Amino acid sequence: MADPILDRLEATIRARRDAPADASYTASLFARGRAKIAQKVGEEAVETVIAACSGDAASIVPEAADLLFHLAVLLADAGLSLDDVRAELERREGVSGHDEKASRTA
Amino acid sequence: MADPILDRLEATIRARRDAPADASYTASLFARGRAKIAQKVGEEAVETVIAACSGDAASIVPEAADLLFHLAVLLADAGLSLDDVRAELERREGVSGHDEKASRTA
Amino acid sequence: MADPILDRLEATIRARRDAPADASYTASLFARGRAKIAQKVGEEAVETVIAACSGDAASIVPEAADLLFHLAVLLADAGLSLDDVRAELERREGVSGHDEKASRTA
Amino acid sequence: MADPILDRLEATIRARRDAPADASYTASLFARGRAKIAQKVGEEAVETVIAACSGDAASIVPEAADLLFHLAVLLADAGLSLDDVRAELERREGVSGHDEKASRTA
Repeated sequence: MADPILDRLEATIRARRDAPADASYTASLFARGRAKIAQKVGEEAVETVIAACSGDAASIVPEAADLLFHLAVLLADAGLSLDDVRAELERREGVSGHDEKASRTA
Repeated sequence: MADPILDRLEATIRARRDAPADASYTASLFARGRAKIAQKVGEEAVETVIAACSGDAASIVPEAADLLFHLAVLLADAGLSLDDVRAELERREGVSGHDEKASRTA
Repeated sequence: MADPILDRLEATIRARRDAPADASYTASLFARGRAKIAQKVGEEAVETVIAACSGDAASIVPEAADLLFHLAVLLADAGLSLDDVRAELERREGVSGHDEKASRTA
Repeated sequence: MADPILDRLEATIRARRDAPADASYTASLFARGRAKIAQKVGEEAVETVIAACSGDAASIVPEAADLLFHLAVLLADAGLSLDDVRAELERREGVSGHDEKASRTA
């Protein structure tokens, strides 16, 4: 998708998926499995929420980076990638959020 | 950053930041303020966790799209963007996750 | 357990478990199933976090009540009750939190 | 409130609130402050969600105990107690969940 940094992030994550669990933090995440990776996504979101409420806007950035990283790991663990998420976002273009939400919850 | 879909997503979000609250879902989010936007990030993360545990991998995609969208709104509300997150991820390149985590929690 | 209010809460929840889904909010929760009830627990926790960070201590109370209510529904849906949680807390008495956490994550 | 286990839990928590941070896990939580305690509530809720989705009902109990413990710490940190939550739940009795939710979000 020509997003050099996110592309490299995902390539690194994929390379570590089949590495020994003690080779890196990322490899250890894959070894612990889907539920543990999902748990990390939830925890990093909580940290992002706390940072957002702290009044220090800059503190959101490292937490958002942690969240995006763990989301990319979760996608990779499920055989998916950020491109699948981009395709979903592109599909929604032109559909307002209100309408989109309504169409899914209807 | 030459990521057409995410760039358009952020441009749309910024355009709606100063629009009337009833003009779109995004405008209504900005009108409700930082804490409410952060709450949505947390809630979409919970939905992503639930989808990840459901055994249906494809169900993660729409929840991850919701999460990324609301994260982009939160960043915009704080005067930040995904480029700030990309810069943080680039800064960490070459630093293993274990080391990065250790350097922050030390 | 001689906690009149929590006992009544749980009795009400159990009574609604087998009622028609449109009879009450609680009945509709049971009808939507375990994952949706768990999602509500996660969302109410996010709201509790936001309230805790708001600086208005009193705003924590209604969110904590929502959280405890949905936790009691989740327990009931799983054939459990707050008594199971009390038994776990009693089991831990005398075990310091540090030690308890260590014994579980070891 | 004559709930011996929860009463003892809260008494223990209060006793540790002013103890040195290295005396116990609970004392260290208070020393780290409101935002960190709220973060733990969010994280334990995520673990409860994961356990609820695991298919092993019994695994919910230790996570629910962690969640209730950290919620009690959060309340104590804010000068509140489970009695405040009980009073809120009692106030809602007779008000159906649907009506209660509607009255708050109206």
